[in-house]
Amino acid sequence: MAEGMNRRHLLAGLAAAPILSGLVASAAAQSAGSDPLPSWSDGPAKQAILTFVRDTTKPGGAKFVAPEERIACFDQDGTLWVEKPIYTQIVYCFDRVPALVKAKPALADEEPFKTVISGDRARIAKLSMDDLIKIVGATLTGMDVEVFRDEVLNWIAQARDPRWKRPYTDLVFRPQIELLRYLRAGGYKTFIVTGGGQDFVRAYSESVYGIPPEQIVGTAGAVKYRYDAEGKPILVKEPKLLLNDDKAGKPEGIHLVIGRRPRFAFGNSSGDREMCEYTTAGDGARMAMLLLHDDADREYAYGPAQGLPDSKIGTFPQTLYHEAQAKGWSVVSMKKDWNRVFAWGA
Amino acid sequence: MAEGMNRRHLLAGLAAAPILSGLVASAAAQSAGSDPLPSWSDGPAKQAILTFVRDTTKPGGAKFVAPEERIACFDQDGTLWVEKPIYTQIVYCFDRVPALVKAKPALADEEPFKTVISGDRARIAKLSMDDLIKIVGATLTGMDVEVFRDEVLNWIAQARDPRWKRPYTDLVFRPQIELLRYLRAGGYKTFIVTGGGQDFVRAYSESVYGIPPEQIVGTAGAVKYRYDAEGKPILVKEPKLLLNDDKAGKPEGIHLVIGRRPRFAFGNSSGDREMCEYTTAGDGARMAMLLLHDDADREYAYGPAQGLPDSKIGTFPQTLYHEAQAKGWSVVSMKKDWNRVFAWGA
Repeated sequence: MAEGMNRRHLLAGLAAAPILSGLVASAAAQSAGSDPLPSWSDGPAKQAILTFVRDTTKPGGAKFVAPEERIACFDQDGTLWVEKPIYTQIVYCFDRVPALVKAKPALADEEPFKTVISGDRARIAKLSMDDLIKIVGATLTGMDVEVFRDEVLNWIAQARDPRWKRPYTDLVFRPQIELLRYLRAGGYKTFIVTGGGQDFVRAYSESVYGIPPEQIVGTAGAVKYRYDAEGKPILVKEPKLLLNDDKAGKPEGIHLVIGRRPRFAFGNSSGDREMCEYTTAGDGARMAMLLLHDDADREYAYGPAQGLPDSKIGTFPQTLYHEAQAKGWSVVSMKKDWNRVFAWGA
Repeated sequence: MAEGMNRRHLLAGLAAAPILSGLVASAAAQSAGSDPLPSWSDGPAKQAILTFVRDTTKPGGAKFVAPEERIACFDQDGTLWVEKPIYTQIVYCFDRVPALVKAKPALADEEPFKTVISGDRARIAKLSMDDLIKIVGATLTGMDVEVFRDEVLNWIAQARDPRWKRPYTDLVFRPQIELLRYLRAGGYKTFIVTGGGQDFVRAYSESVYGIPPEQIVGTAGAVKYRYDAEGKPILVKEPKLLLNDDKAGKPEGIHLVIGRRPRFAFGNSSGDREMCEYTTAGDGARMAMLLLHDDADREYAYGPAQGLPDSKIGTFPQTLYHEAQAKGWSVVSMKKDWNRVFAWGA
């Protein structure tokens, strides 16, 4: 093509060319000397990451992966940030109830909203799954997507977690931020593939993880194109589920939004099993990792680390632990593999 | 963060910084001297594009758009390539029927497949909408997404359009390829937002348009996570519609896959009206364009160029033409604004 070239165009073109991605890969390999993953302790997990990125970015190597095929998918809750004692998005939904009742006063006498605003913890703890679904539906749907985004950002700015009294976005795992950056430095496009709400995570993903809204795959409802009172077109969140992005829904969501099989997947629960399975079943170099929460001091301990029967250990059962070992998926021990958990402390 | 830096990381970081995007913008402005859009004739449409990109990439300017907000969405059929006499994907569906019948011989005696394989043009022309839906469903669903991709690529490699006897991918408009590259050079992320099948377009979008699968928003069906006979996990295309990416479905699909309001939209029919409306209703600099097919010699003439009543002129009615003029959306005349239509000829 004879169209004008400019500096950015040139850089973009060069970066995509195998020859420069060779230089990039070499640079990545060299920079490993200065440790791209300082919060990761030396050990098999860290070594597996460094080897995978080196091998898949080395032009001419047997495991080389073309730059456009470098897709890395991360679960969010329990993988990129803390998921205990309760998913952050559920806390959000409960915290939104007073504002919801203020906007629609009739709800004050309607269950389960009446119980939530009563503040009676014993009664709140007894809410049924149907009650929870009502609360989630009422606080996550019915509004303009841009209004929702602002509501989430306002909440994120003031909410504090119960244990460390910090903003929830401080509960992001520092080793994972390093890993996301390291993968991006190796030409990987990083995606979040979450059972959480796609729009919820999109609100803060760019500032917290460096991952833009278009790289978030999550549980998604339909939106409806409508006009507001001033005639401005808006998109309203509908109470209609399009994608339940959990378990088999994760590879299905990956196809809907990304359209190709990832090369790298990182999860922490049985909700991530199919994503790991799908990722590693493709041809060529593939890798799956699972985070084991075995550090009650610095974070939480749950799952196989507790040696409990499957029915007692929540979302990371022994069966998944054994499957991971059998299939060569890396199990990352928070206690042993991470010398630091959060950016602000231990 | 203290993690190791490498060349690619550094470049990526710099490119995102306002200061370098200033340099990039200046370079873009300068390179306009060597004409980034050589197939576009001088005139208001070309000038509008150059002005928009210059204004939105100039740091400190009143119309500056942050790099991460630079989202450009293009319709495909009739906007990026020829849509006459019939959508390419429909040709594909009909062409697939013999292979389908070979795989499932019982279909040979079942309508509408029996009529299609008869080759009787008069009878084929009389197929009903229900018949068409059956053909589309049978040829676009029921298989592994990776098998489908291969089938599309095999077909694309051998199929020829009836007028020019060329591969359909040769019917891409050269001025639009220049425009896509020019926008990308200005830091815009380019997406296709098509009423066509998302998976169909994804099969060839990267090689033809330089647009990867994860930047295709299209009419999408559900996929189901399953295991093939060897136990390998696959995704099977289901006959269940998730997104009808046409009209109001376009902004809805943009939200599902991209998650933010575009800055730039380019369409050519009433199917693109809401996408243009949604795009231009946001704050700050926005731009919408519509391609007018008024060149029967080099391509086709249909729509308002014919001066016919709305009911007679297909997908680009007079009403949309008038709305575009009233709202300041640029109407691009193929005849006047493009000095060249295809890469290979006139």
